[in-house]
Amino acid sequence: MKDYRLPVRADGKKTFNKIVETGTRLFSKLGYYGASINEIIEESGIATGTFYLYFNDKRALYLYLIDLYGKEITKAIQKGIRGAKNRYEEEKLGIRAFLIYAHENPISYRIFWEAMYVDGDVFKDYYQNFSRRYIKGLRRGVNSGEIYDDTDLETISYILMGISNFVGLQVLFNENADEKYIDFLTDEVMKFLEKGMFRK
Amino acid sequence: MKDYRLPVRADGKKTFNKIVETGTRLFSKLGYYGASINEIIEESGIATGTFYLYFNDKRALYLYLIDLYGKEITKAIQKGIRGAKNRYEEEKLGIRAFLIYAHENPISYRIFWEAMYVDGDVFKDYYQNFSRRYIKGLRRGVNSGEIYDDTDLETISYILMGISNFVGLQVLFNENADEKYIDFLTDEVMKFLEKGMFRK
Repeated sequence: MKDYRLPVRADGKKTFNKIVETGTRLFSKLGYYGASINEIIEESGIATGTFYLYFNDKRALYLYLIDLYGKEITKAIQKGIRGAKNRYEEEKLGIRAFLIYAHENPISYRIFWEAMYVDGDVFKDYYQNFSRRYIKGLRRGVNSGEIYDDTDLETISYILMGISNFVGLQVLFNENADEKYIDFLTDEVMKFLEKGMFRK
Repeated sequence: MKDYRLPVRADGKKTFNKIVETGTRLFSKLGYYGASINEIIEESGIATGTFYLYFNDKRALYLYLIDLYGKEITKAIQKGIRGAKNRYEEEKLGIRAFLIYAHENPISYRIFWEAMYVDGDVFKDYYQNFSRRYIKGLRRGVNSGEIYDDTDLETISYILMGISNFVGLQVLFNENADEKYIDFLTDEVMKFLEKGMFRK
């Protein structure tokens, strides 16, 4: 059951987007519990009743944002891997797209990682769904003989999500991070995915 | 400059620990901005003045907790890797110790990940210091010829932190997780570290 309603008319869309922007900014700054619904309404420059036209409550807005950012990340990755010739290239382009997205939207980390408190089930669902999609792609790689068939694909999916997220932090921590730096990190990650870290 | 003071006498220690416990519980439940200092004081069953004997403010308590959990994790890993015969075994035992710690203290994730909002510098320092310590160990592995010498060690350190943290989530998401499951995941991770995921 949806607890938000999308706008229909153009002026409604403008108001809706304003609420989404303000919510993103305040949740990122103050966290879910710290940002009050009144503040969000006030800083959006809308009447109280207008907020409730679109969202049942603060939580509904937050869950909408998680959904929104989740879709955005997925879209950015899908766009990034378009034209990949094989699973290896797909992984490389996917990681690169994730790092670029993280660099441009550090806010997305906050929204997702705080979901752990706001709604443990939403947090779990998000990563489990991401994992399931990953596993499908990995299975194709196993079937085509590109990926080893003796490793648990669920574990590989968490390994890969962990790598993207934490190398993403490495990007965020570097004030001089640019596309060249992201390409460098992507190549280093790919070396790791190709042969691991321990010499035979 | 420290903004907390450790207790000296036994009854002070009891009070201090009570504050730490209550803080951990409320921050985990409501987040840093959601948990008020008054609530922490009330649920600790202490007088307001008593709180300030030990902590300057809510933030001081939070930063103390980050420090505390950071030390605990490091200690758990150090204990876990004791007796490792080589870098490979050290990595394996370290990852296993981290997963067991995560399983027993899911709260630690919340404390660390929310640090991103509370104090971006503390969050960054925590992971950068963790990375630095990791790099030292990795360098020993490179020098002894166990680890490939053509990969950026900082990137490897973030890759490994990401793997531990996200395979840790895989543990948290599994209601039936036990030591056997953790051993299974550790073995799967080690396969990955040994040879990567792509066939040559």
